[in-house]
Amino acid sequence: MATKKETKSKHKHKSLDNFETESPEEIEKRTLEIAQNIVSQIKNGTSPTFTTKVRGLSNVYFDEDKQYIQLGDKQVTRPFLNLGAARKFMQTMLINDKCNEYLKEGKTASIREIYYELKRTIATTKENTFEAQSESDEVIVDVEHAVNTIREKLGLHAEAKGALYGDITLKDRKHDDDVFNCNSLGRGGWSIMSRIEPEEIEIVDIKADMVLVIETAAMYNRLIEEKYARKHNAILIGISGQAARGARRLIHRLRYEYDLPVVVFTDGDPYGWYIYSVIKSGSMALAAHSKYMAVPDAKYVGMTLTDVETYGLQNVTEKMKDGDVKRAKELMNYDWFKSKNWQHELKLAIDKKIRIEQQALANKSLDFVAKEYLPEKIEKEIFV
Amino acid sequence: MATKKETKSKHKHKSLDNFETESPEEIEKRTLEIAQNIVSQIKNGTSPTFTTKVRGLSNVYFDEDKQYIQLGDKQVTRPFLNLGAARKFMQTMLINDKCNEYLKEGKTASIREIYYELKRTIATTKENTFEAQSESDEVIVDVEHAVNTIREKLGLHAEAKGALYGDITLKDRKHDDDVFNCNSLGRGGWSIMSRIEPEEIEIVDIKADMVLVIETAAMYNRLIEEKYARKHNAILIGISGQAARGARRLIHRLRYEYDLPVVVFTDGDPYGWYIYSVIKSGSMALAAHSKYMAVPDAKYVGMTLTDVETYGLQNVTEKMKDGDVKRAKELMNYDWFKSKNWQHELKLAIDKKIRIEQQALANKSLDFVAKEYLPEKIEKEIFV
Repeated sequence: MATKKETKSKHKHKSLDNFETESPEEIEKRTLEIAQNIVSQIKNGTSPTFTTKVRGLSNVYFDEDKQYIQLGDKQVTRPFLNLGAARKFMQTMLINDKCNEYLKEGKTASIREIYYELKRTIATTKENTFEAQSESDEVIVDVEHAVNTIREKLGLHAEAKGALYGDITLKDRKHDDDVFNCNSLGRGGWSIMSRIEPEEIEIVDIKADMVLVIETAAMYNRLIEEKYARKHNAILIGISGQAARGARRLIHRLRYEYDLPVVVFTDGDPYGWYIYSVIKSGSMALAAHSKYMAVPDAKYVGMTLTDVETYGLQNVTEKMKDGDVKRAKELMNYDWFKSKNWQHELKLAIDKKIRIEQQALANKSLDFVAKEYLPEKIEKEIFV
Repeated sequence: MATKKETKSKHKHKSLDNFETESPEEIEKRTLEIAQNIVSQIKNGTSPTFTTKVRGLSNVYFDEDKQYIQLGDKQVTRPFLNLGAARKFMQTMLINDKCNEYLKEGKTASIREIYYELKRTIATTKENTFEAQSESDEVIVDVEHAVNTIREKLGLHAEAKGALYGDITLKDRKHDDDVFNCNSLGRGGWSIMSRIEPEEIEIVDIKADMVLVIETAAMYNRLIEEKYARKHNAILIGISGQAARGARRLIHRLRYEYDLPVVVFTDGDPYGWYIYSVIKSGSMALAAHSKYMAVPDAKYVGMTLTDVETYGLQNVTEKMKDGDVKRAKELMNYDWFKSKNWQHELKLAIDKKIRIEQQALANKSLDFVAKEYLPEKIEKEIFV
């Protein structure tokens, strides 16, 4: 399917790291090897074992060099002939086998579908393969670690969320080679798919110069209506809350395949800052996936509590809840929030116990965010 | 902006009811008249009053003729010179005035933005115009009723949600006349805007023959991947839970402007059936808006508890929660669920206390929903 690229993109295309562009064949081979290894063990008369990585805080660290959260090398080996592990072993084999099938047949499934696809009562017993999706979700992570990849490359996906707007042309190689530009879709934009892997979704051309990631759909809508993207040559990505994996993978690719700067714009509260934190440095829960998704040099443009003073927004702040204050204190301890500016912002939040939303800028005027706030802060690089 | 239509659409374009296509100028005139009326009252030395419709159950009824929920004609008149009403009166004038401004200037705002835009401390007092968005939201409904329209036509919108896929070409007259077809956007589709009013979003052409509305983003994704839309000439609308207003308005327009049949596909549980109920007959809370949004002849294809037997899905049902059982009992009392089939389905749910999800069909095989379930049920019109 992959034809020679003949487009003349404004931005030079760079190669992603190898692990990001592995072919389905390569991944499929590794899922097969896991199964073959088990078979050999059985043939050799030894108890079969499955090896994956230790999860949890004991094996998670902040990589100072790469500036994102990583999973360490600690491994765990699960024996089959162990009453406590046998059930999980069986589940692991089922998931690994099904992913192998998806890859061979070029299929994808949601993590809920694979759960339903594999759920059944084991013959002559009353035992179900899975009782709840939480069980298969756990095992999917084990298989990701054992195969050393992400679920997207195993053919799995979560719910799609988020929208894309701007002068970027994409090609869906797995859907009749559809080619489309996201700059002429009215004020709606493209509904971002749950999986944005390079072997399927090709970035054919980009004329925009930066990526602006926006927390709320309403602000994404505001900026399109004010023609912010067209005037400032930006790609807008509306993430509607915490960024979904597809949106994160897209942001990461725009940064590393096309060298576009990434600027994040959220509500000025610990929830919004955590959204930024995850885009920038990854999360504990997905520590092994940071290298596919993190953008350590993503900039944060706002909202900040300093903005409240600078722009006279005192009248449109809201009170922070106790949970928000607790989260702000947690953020203060993150290695990637240790800069003087962030410590100052977080201390302000904890002291004043107020928050400020993106849409509160409407208090100045509806177009203030597009005509003054963002252009000024981005041009002068007033980032936290 | 409205140019003569020269496209040769497969489907004949029909005129919507007048209230659905009123121009911003007409609506603006009515917001102005409300203000002028107040001014006259003051000039005449009488206490100014504002008249809107009574909300709540006492003024809501099911219109047997039209087959959707309606708001009755009971009116309420609020005097300004009344300590209890003065604050709300002031808020009503502010919202009405701001909507008038939006319409004159061709602007739109989210309901959160209008709240922030109008929030301020009234000079020489400590009184804020609004303390919380709940206050402005209430008043917006009053203004909708007084002006006799929907918020979309007042320039207001909620968060956008939902995606559109299929052979339909749209034009956004308020965004450089962008024209785009939603059939060639890869597996993502178009991110549906929060406002889909005919004077702004023109349906230029439709080649599809039906509209399939889908509750979950994952099932929307599944059907695209299986090429269901292309093979069965369908438009797919993924609503991601309860349908947002933009999605509902779009579905309504496809039904009445282009006479396309609408089929709804949700999880088989009271929450899913309520989603269908709202699309079909509207809701109590938005009783006045049914005529803009309801589709009384929308069909329901599944999931049903009868499907569990028919397709042997006993192993992949889930237990219903107590709240679901309560909701099922409520649905049984709705006029539009009084058919023998629905009463049977609801009784099954209440007796068995089980639910069945769309994605549970993956238990047969991933493509079962696209290759067997939907084609069979839709072709044979096996609707509830």
